[in-house]
Amino acid sequence: MNDAFFKTVARTPAFGFGGAPLDRVSERREDAAFVAALRARPDATAALIAREMPILPRGEPPLAPFFPIAEIDRLGGAQFEALLGIEAAGAPVFAALLPDGAVEQLSGDSEGFLDRRQLIVPGRDDLALTDLRSIAVQGLVAPDAVAVLGQAKAILSWHARHGFCANCGAPTRVAAAGWRRECDVCKAQHFPRTDPVVIMLALDGERCLLGRQSRWPAGMYSCLAGFVEPGETIEEAVRREIREESGIACGEVAYLASQPWPFPSSLMIGCFARATSRDILVDGEELEDARWFTRDDVMAMFDKRHPEGLTTPMPMAIAHHILRVWAEGDL
Amino acid sequence: MNDAFFKTVARTPAFGFGGAPLDRVSERREDAAFVAALRARPDATAALIAREMPILPRGEPPLAPFFPIAEIDRLGGAQFEALLGIEAAGAPVFAALLPDGAVEQLSGDSEGFLDRRQLIVPGRDDLALTDLRSIAVQGLVAPDAVAVLGQAKAILSWHARHGFCANCGAPTRVAAAGWRRECDVCKAQHFPRTDPVVIMLALDGERCLLGRQSRWPAGMYSCLAGFVEPGETIEEAVRREIREESGIACGEVAYLASQPWPFPSSLMIGCFARATSRDILVDGEELEDARWFTRDDVMAMFDKRHPEGLTTPMPMAIAHHILRVWAEGDL
Repeated sequence: MNDAFFKTVARTPAFGFGGAPLDRVSERREDAAFVAALRARPDATAALIAREMPILPRGEPPLAPFFPIAEIDRLGGAQFEALLGIEAAGAPVFAALLPDGAVEQLSGDSEGFLDRRQLIVPGRDDLALTDLRSIAVQGLVAPDAVAVLGQAKAILSWHARHGFCANCGAPTRVAAAGWRRECDVCKAQHFPRTDPVVIMLALDGERCLLGRQSRWPAGMYSCLAGFVEPGETIEEAVRREIREESGIACGEVAYLASQPWPFPSSLMIGCFARATSRDILVDGEELEDARWFTRDDVMAMFDKRHPEGLTTPMPMAIAHHILRVWAEGDL
Repeated sequence: MNDAFFKTVARTPAFGFGGAPLDRVSERREDAAFVAALRARPDATAALIAREMPILPRGEPPLAPFFPIAEIDRLGGAQFEALLGIEAAGAPVFAALLPDGAVEQLSGDSEGFLDRRQLIVPGRDDLALTDLRSIAVQGLVAPDAVAVLGQAKAILSWHARHGFCANCGAPTRVAAAGWRRECDVCKAQHFPRTDPVVIMLALDGERCLLGRQSRWPAGMYSCLAGFVEPGETIEEAVRREIREESGIACGEVAYLASQPWPFPSSLMIGCFARATSRDILVDGEELEDARWFTRDDVMAMFDKRHPEGLTTPMPMAIAHHILRVWAEGDL
């Protein structure tokens, strides 16, 4: 009986920023001596982040994005560090945030959704910075490493934006191997923030509801999405967001899969919802358009042969997988 | 085909702090004139919170926990207000946080898990304060109203603990009808925090894994649980927490239901996990004990006839429903 239940629902695909292979040893983070001993190990490495982007070696992919710990000091020292975890073979992996001044912007052009800013490390021709979306889309590092870089970016970006106590305004300090901040004035403890976001496909029989935001690449349609608010369930958030953005009412909601999304630190909760109305009314704020699409439409969008040139999000995004599970009839 | 899929997974029970019946009109929160007009309506009401507890009228349950807006000023004015939403009949509902000094502690005794502190409103014999857990457990207000009080407590507690900008330390101010705080110094925007928590039942054939924390009422066993961290999926968090707390390894994970939990503002994500090992090793920190239980054990715990006097959490908690779905063979 359990078998059948698990078979029905346990088909979570691995993609994007999920699948980090580290043992987080979260129960040992308070043990400063343990953490220091890990950091002193010769096989210890660190992901290096500056201006929200990983530093990578130059070369042909797949690139190795983890550097010996000594590299942190060679690059001028870290603002913050966090212990990410331990690899299966025993090697500890840390994350280090370098100050903005450690890198230099080479050109300021941005290219649509991906915002590919090229940054360099002055005096280090062997290193370059690439934004995490591009790293994932272009497969510059192994999928496992993408997940670890996402973990590194999420925790370090949180430190960078949370240097002060929200309760009393005093500066806070890093604790628990980078997984907590503490206020010495009011004694408040602050933990890394993870924002749950529902992302979903409303289904009306053989049609699905996709929308587009004006800031997206031309022609791209995707699942609707929005933050879960205090005081609501996942299912309530799904129905509220669909109704607000598209005017469509929904009944039952079914969970499919989840994905960490390090921009800055969301948990994407992927769902289907059964539509109970059909007339779309876009809000004009979140979305500039929303439409019903057939399976054939979506397959054509995947294959880049849609007559209007419409497209879907890339496979690094959970929206792609929600759509694919539906379009390929894999429910 | 969709029918079968939804039927398999869409059986989310309603309980605890879910099921708030309000239209949150979140797309209108920026419209100050709209919000002011709602607040001026004669049918507008407010949930009143002080020291993290709702103010209730004295009397026989079910009590009406929403007061005319004018009551806020009669009680000395609010520290913060938020628009919760609009009832189906059109009446707006707000939440108002009264300063600590507006209420007075009558007695300081606390009674185990529920922490039933009795507070009064000086000079107002018609009002009393009761903590939200007791309100839910004792059914002091209608289930719909429990959910709205949970929403009120979660958003107001966030304001109370986030008066300063985590980015620069400056005081922040309320915006968007109580759903955002803004920093006029560094221009950072801060949104209410909702912390995703996985809560789950590991299954080994016909047995389930329950644990207990030392601070819980004597004899109570429940699902394991823990915060989702940056960089992990729901499924990864489920496996990590079970392994850390009990030493049990797990494979597939299946989502069941979710629940908002306003202590202070979590989203409980209820799951099952298929255990792939059997030897329990409790960490001694999170848990003081963990054991395998049969369906018969759990049914006896529900019915308060377990030979060792063991019990489960109450029906207001999602853990109760995860256990009941499994014990009653409703997968």
